[in-house]
Amino acid sequence: MGKTGLLVLLVIWARVGAENGKQLNVLLILADDGGFEMGAYRNKICQTPNLDALAKNSLIFNNAYTSVSSCSPSRSALLTGMPAHQNGMYGLHQAENHFDSFTNVKSLPNILRENGIRTGIIGKKHVGPKSTYRFDYEQTEENNSILQVGRNITLIKLLAREFLNNSTDKPFFLYVAFHDPHRCGHTHPEYGQFCQRFGNGDVGMGLIPDWRPIYYQWDELELPYYIPDTEAARREVANQYTTISRLDQGVGLILEELEKSGHADDTLVIYSSDNGTPFPNGRTNLYDSGIAEPMFISSPLHKERHNQVTYSLTSLLDIVPTVLDWFNITEESNEINSKKLTGKSLLPLLVKEPENTTNEAIFASHNLHEVTMYYPMRMIRTHRYKLIHNLNYQAPFPIDQDFYLSPTFQDILNRTRNKENLYWFKTLRQYYNRPEWELYDLKHDPVELNNLAGKSDYKDIMQELEKRLSEWQNATSDPWICSPHSVLENKGDYAHNPQCMPLYNT
Amino acid sequence: MGKTGLLVLLVIWARVGAENGKQLNVLLILADDGGFEMGAYRNKICQTPNLDALAKNSLIFNNAYTSVSSCSPSRSALLTGMPAHQNGMYGLHQAENHFDSFTNVKSLPNILRENGIRTGIIGKKHVGPKSTYRFDYEQTEENNSILQVGRNITLIKLLAREFLNNSTDKPFFLYVAFHDPHRCGHTHPEYGQFCQRFGNGDVGMGLIPDWRPIYYQWDELELPYYIPDTEAARREVANQYTTISRLDQGVGLILEELEKSGHADDTLVIYSSDNGTPFPNGRTNLYDSGIAEPMFISSPLHKERHNQVTYSLTSLLDIVPTVLDWFNITEESNEINSKKLTGKSLLPLLVKEPENTTNEAIFASHNLHEVTMYYPMRMIRTHRYKLIHNLNYQAPFPIDQDFYLSPTFQDILNRTRNKENLYWFKTLRQYYNRPEWELYDLKHDPVELNNLAGKSDYKDIMQELEKRLSEWQNATSDPWICSPHSVLENKGDYAHNPQCMPLYNT
Ligand SMILES: [Ca+2]
Ligand SMILES: [Ca+2]
Ligand SMILES: [Mg+2]
Ligand SMILES: [Mg+2]
Repeated sequence: MGKTGLLVLLVIWARVGAENGKQLNVLLILADDGGFEMGAYRNKICQTPNLDALAKNSLIFNNAYTSVSSCSPSRSALLTGMPAHQNGMYGLHQAENHFDSFTNVKSLPNILRENGIRTGIIGKKHVGPKSTYRFDYEQTEENNSILQVGRNITLIKLLAREFLNNSTDKPFFLYVAFHDPHRCGHTHPEYGQFCQRFGNGDVGMGLIPDWRPIYYQWDELELPYYIPDTEAARREVANQYTTISRLDQGVGLILEELEKSGHADDTLVIYSSDNGTPFPNGRTNLYDSGIAEPMFISSPLHKERHNQVTYSLTSLLDIVPTVLDWFNITEESNEINSKKLTGKSLLPLLVKEPENTTNEAIFASHNLHEVTMYYPMRMIRTHRYKLIHNLNYQAPFPIDQDFYLSPTFQDILNRTRNKENLYWFKTLRQYYNRPEWELYDLKHDPVELNNLAGKSDYKDIMQELEKRLSEWQNATSDPWICSPHSVLENKGDYAHNPQCMPLYNT
Repeated sequence: MGKTGLLVLLVIWARVGAENGKQLNVLLILADDGGFEMGAYRNKICQTPNLDALAKNSLIFNNAYTSVSSCSPSRSALLTGMPAHQNGMYGLHQAENHFDSFTNVKSLPNILRENGIRTGIIGKKHVGPKSTYRFDYEQTEENNSILQVGRNITLIKLLAREFLNNSTDKPFFLYVAFHDPHRCGHTHPEYGQFCQRFGNGDVGMGLIPDWRPIYYQWDELELPYYIPDTEAARREVANQYTTISRLDQGVGLILEELEKSGHADDTLVIYSSDNGTPFPNGRTNLYDSGIAEPMFISSPLHKERHNQVTYSLTSLLDIVPTVLDWFNITEESNEINSKKLTGKSLLPLLVKEPENTTNEAIFASHNLHEVTMYYPMRMIRTHRYKLIHNLNYQAPFPIDQDFYLSPTFQDILNRTRNKENLYWFKTLRQYYNRPEWELYDLKHDPVELNNLAGKSDYKDIMQELEKRLSEWQNATSDPWICSPHSVLENKGDYAHNPQCMPLYNT
């Protein structure tokens, strides 16, 4: 399908709602640090009947990626369509980190509200400032306990009911941001590493009436390649799975509320997660294990591809264009901060797989996570190759407070100190010390171990990827575009002629 | 004088104003990137009659230091009494950097306003958020051209007059923050590297009626040791001196307005600068050339030490306690963010030099400048020694957009590339590449070239300084207290038992 074809399709799409005079809505469901622990993604152990049912009514994305594997930056990108380096959320929002998006950034809830759509958020917000991300209905960590509003699925169900039963005629955008299956060993160790005991009815754990916990044996799991095959890690994964059962049943409850409200037939449902799982090589990394995300899009208006898989490269940066497209809002999506959004609507995928995906690419951009964790990276990924530019490569890769305390990481530390086998696919030293450039051939090296950067056979490929990455950085006003060996000059004499000027600092 | 003596003195002080029923005010004058280019600090070339006259009526500080050599962080520390890592302003405030202090930080203007004191700012603000730094009267870059409100001394005079002639009976705090002698080659090259032509009456330069520019010969200057002795650098310093003439005459105009308003006899006048001069080894560095600041305090109530010099180690963090002391406000100064301010009132110094200064120390804390310039450093300086901890020492020291374009730095780059003599006291490679720890004996090595860190003879000194530095980091809630080789754990199980836990990342 050519560009014209796409455009025509978009126009038809947009008119579906308008011509029928039918209300069109969006329900966006986000997991926190969730991965592929579900049947729909061929995990045979972790039981997720509700997510699997949603997948059956969805287009299933096999190549969806976050643009940054860190909570607040990812959520800011999800809600603005702009990577974190463009929207200003360079790291975590909470406490001493206190990163914020720019005040002049237009976010999805603000755009939608201006277009007469009722907006709601239930669960984890984790972005700011408030004026930039304002929902009509907010039940978040800002006015609730995050444990309650993010993990108590009975409460989440009731809040969703409250929002959905609001009697206005306006179309709605409801964003349900679960805190599950995020770790909580760091802040609430009493509930277990993954808060897997929170609300399970045991003494002191409280009771979530709607949750039927599912428990797993640590020696009966399928570990992804990037988690060490140790008892410590396996016990953690077993607990993560139990928490997934709460998430999964929560998703079921929300979808039931949607059905009961009478809006199952006119609501686009999107499910995804903000970043990689909190295991080594996962969250805060731009390896596939850090950025690949589950994604389902279920449209009641287009069932052609329900239960089919798309292999098209997709970014969470595509969510804003997709939602705006669904609501037929074109004006705001074109120009924010005088730069066009780089994402694309995913609605055409619901109809037909693109014919030629050869040139597809997705991009990612990490800056900090905690404010002490400066490790900016830029990445381009095609179907075949990935190029990562580590900008602070001279320093060791940083470890966050949460992950540091995990039994999995403590086990890696202890085994390294004792010179024992890690049962891991890399060493801690490898993990800490990264070269400036990493180039991987994902076809032959999906686990990203064999760095091809600098090899003469890959010179052309690398050049081409570098060029595309730099173009994306330019298109998204990346302050780091000249880092780490040049200084960006773009004011005064260089206002109309921005340049990277060399530091000779190698 | 013991602690009791100090306390008694403070109480007497506080009552001077109260008992007389006399209005006490403060005028704080700040230069932007200003140094010691004035007669009062024995520069025999640069002509500064107004600053010299102020010095004659002041206690002259010979050991005053900023707590961070970067504009917004320094101003935030100046106005909160908390180092940047504690108040949240980790880097520059403007544009894409968009650092802010925490919203719950209490700033000097907010505390003073709550205590019935009228507050005003004229010139460069460069801190945020607005609610944290709110003055009753604001004429800043937020509602004016920074060139006008920060460099047009005629306008600044008229604004000061407007503020001073306000007919309320309230005591006042007026903060005049000149933008001179900051560089402007980076943003407004048409006015010259130091904006030395702005308002000089030449074609297209505008005219500042009150300014009589003083011009200098580049080959007739006294260069500080840290500026290369090259024509390129000397021409810059000559221009910097010309801009100093505008600053100096501006200070004269402000003091004249104070006199005319009838408040010369009841107003404490403080003069200083926010950070080191914008030359290599200066701004953004914690070497003395980056942090030593001019400071005069002129009290009309205590003339004992006018035109005397104090050698007591003084920090810009002492300004908040000093001003609160002057206004006899004790409550707010004791506890902010549940931590006491670490600074001290300087008023006792106006009466008498302390008898024992052996244990005096000042501290500094740099995090970023531009958001791409992550180079956190922590420093303690006693009379004899300085210890610097470079936390991102593996990466090269970063260069900002402004300084990069300066002829002085361009000359260093060119000469380095061409392997020519730099006529500088270090090499560019030395400047970029710094060890994790730097320890200097300032008595024998005032230019900080001979690093004693790790030398066995200095083991005890280093341990003692490390301990004191770490205690200060703890007392000021430093998020970087465990960096770069440990992770701070202070939540959950560690909430009442914070620990630095090892990464084994070396
Ligand atoms: Ca997350
Ligand atoms: Ca400055
Ligand atoms: Mg998080
Ligand atoms: Mg500045």
